[in-house]
Amino acid sequence: MTQIRAILFDVFGTVVDWRASLIADLSAWGTAHGITADWAGLADAWRGAYAPSMDRVRRGAQPWTLLDDLHRQSLQTLLPGFGVTGLDDAQILHLSHVWRRLHPWPDSVAGLTTLKQRFTVCALSNGNVALLIAMAKFGGLPWDFVFGSDLTRHYKPDPQTYLGACGFLGLEPAQVLMAAAHPSDLAAAQRLGLRTAFIARPDEYGPGGTADPAGAWDYAVNGIDALAAAL
Amino acid sequence: MTQIRAILFDVFGTVVDWRASLIADLSAWGTAHGITADWAGLADAWRGAYAPSMDRVRRGAQPWTLLDDLHRQSLQTLLPGFGVTGLDDAQILHLSHVWRRLHPWPDSVAGLTTLKQRFTVCALSNGNVALLIAMAKFGGLPWDFVFGSDLTRHYKPDPQTYLGACGFLGLEPAQVLMAAAHPSDLAAAQRLGLRTAFIARPDEYGPGGTADPAGAWDYAVNGIDALAAAL
Repeated sequence: MTQIRAILFDVFGTVVDWRASLIADLSAWGTAHGITADWAGLADAWRGAYAPSMDRVRRGAQPWTLLDDLHRQSLQTLLPGFGVTGLDDAQILHLSHVWRRLHPWPDSVAGLTTLKQRFTVCALSNGNVALLIAMAKFGGLPWDFVFGSDLTRHYKPDPQTYLGACGFLGLEPAQVLMAAAHPSDLAAAQRLGLRTAFIARPDEYGPGGTADPAGAWDYAVNGIDALAAAL
Repeated sequence: MTQIRAILFDVFGTVVDWRASLIADLSAWGTAHGITADWAGLADAWRGAYAPSMDRVRRGAQPWTLLDDLHRQSLQTLLPGFGVTGLDDAQILHLSHVWRRLHPWPDSVAGLTTLKQRFTVCALSNGNVALLIAMAKFGGLPWDFVFGSDLTRHYKPDPQTYLGACGFLGLEPAQVLMAAAHPSDLAAAQRLGLRTAFIARPDEYGPGGTADPAGAWDYAVNGIDALAAAL
C-alpha cells in the first residue's frame, strides 16, 4: 500500500458549516439594518444556485469566473424574491463575502491540527484563493496550502482540479487522500487514483438531516478528528 | 495612503538563512556518510548557479523547470568538482532537497506570527509550491499562502510573479507590500506599484558581511520582527 503523504479537503460542508454560518451572519446583519427576511430560505436557495452557476462556466456559457463573483451574481438574482431590495454595492459585496466567514465544524480545527503533524493538509475547493485565505484566517484553519479553483481555472469535479493539486504537491495520486462529505467529489477523485475518505456531515443541510450513504471509500468517519484517529 | 492588506516575502535569504543551513546540513550528511568536502564552497557555488539556471529558463534555452529540479541539475554539475562522486539517485535527491530544509533567521517566525494577525502573510518565491510547503513545515513558518513560481511558471523578477500574486489575492498592487533583502526584487515590485520593505540581512553570504544598501523603499528594517513593529 502506497503511503499517504497529503490530504486534500473539500471545504464547504466538509470542513465548515456553511448553512448555520450563513443563517447566523445574514440574520445578524438583517437585525443591525432593520431588515427582516427568510434568511434560512435565502441560504438554501443561494446554495441551490451554486452548482448551476459553476455548470454555466464549465459548459462555456460564461467565461471563467471566481466563486466569489458567482456568489455575488447569485445573491443579486435571489435577493428581490426574498423582499430585500435597495442595497448598495458595498452591502452586496459584504453579504456575498459571507462565504468567507463560515465557521468550522466543532472537530475541524483540532482534527486538521493533528493531521498536519504527519501529513500535508490542504484545501481543495471550488472557492478561490482569496476566499479560502480569508476563511482560514476567520476560522483558524491551519492549512499547509489552499488549492483554490482559480489555480487551475476549473471547478470540481473536473479532473484538472485533483490532478493539478497532486502535480503541485509533486505526488502521485495514490499518495494523496481526498476527504469530503460528498460522494460525487470522492468518486471523481477515486477514478483518478486518489485515495478517499468520506466524512459524514448529516447536519450539512440543517439539524436532523441524514448523511450521504457511505460508499466504497478507503475510510468512512464521522469527523476530521475521527479521520486523524483512523489514520 | 492606500492601506496595506497583504505582505509578500522573498524567502531565500530574507526569511531563511540558506548558507548556514546548507553548510550544516551537508556537513552532517558528509560526516554520516564518511565524505569530506569543502561544503561551504559547495554552498556558495550552488547558490552561484541559481540565477544563471533561472535565466536559462527565462530565455527559453530550457523549458519550464521547477526550482527543485534546477537545484538538482546544478548540484549534479558541481559535485564532481568538489570530489564527491558515486552518489545514487536517492542520495542526490536528498541533497538537492536541502533547500527544503532551511532554517529561519531568529526573528522570522515571531515576526511573521505577529504580522499574520493584521495582514495576509505570503511567500513570493522562486521556489516551487512543494518546496515552500516542505520548508514551512520544517521551519514552522506560519504562511497564509505560498506563491510558488510554478503557479505562474515565471521566476522573479518577471512581472507575472508580483502581479499574479496580487491577482490571486484580489488586491491592487498598492495594497501589497513586497519584503525582501535584495534591492533587485524590491525594484521590480516597486515598478509595478507594490509597496516595498527592505529587510537587511548582512550575514546572508556569511558572518561579517554587509547588507545591500538601503534604497528608496517605503520601509527599511533589520528583521521581520522590526517590520512588524514599523507597521
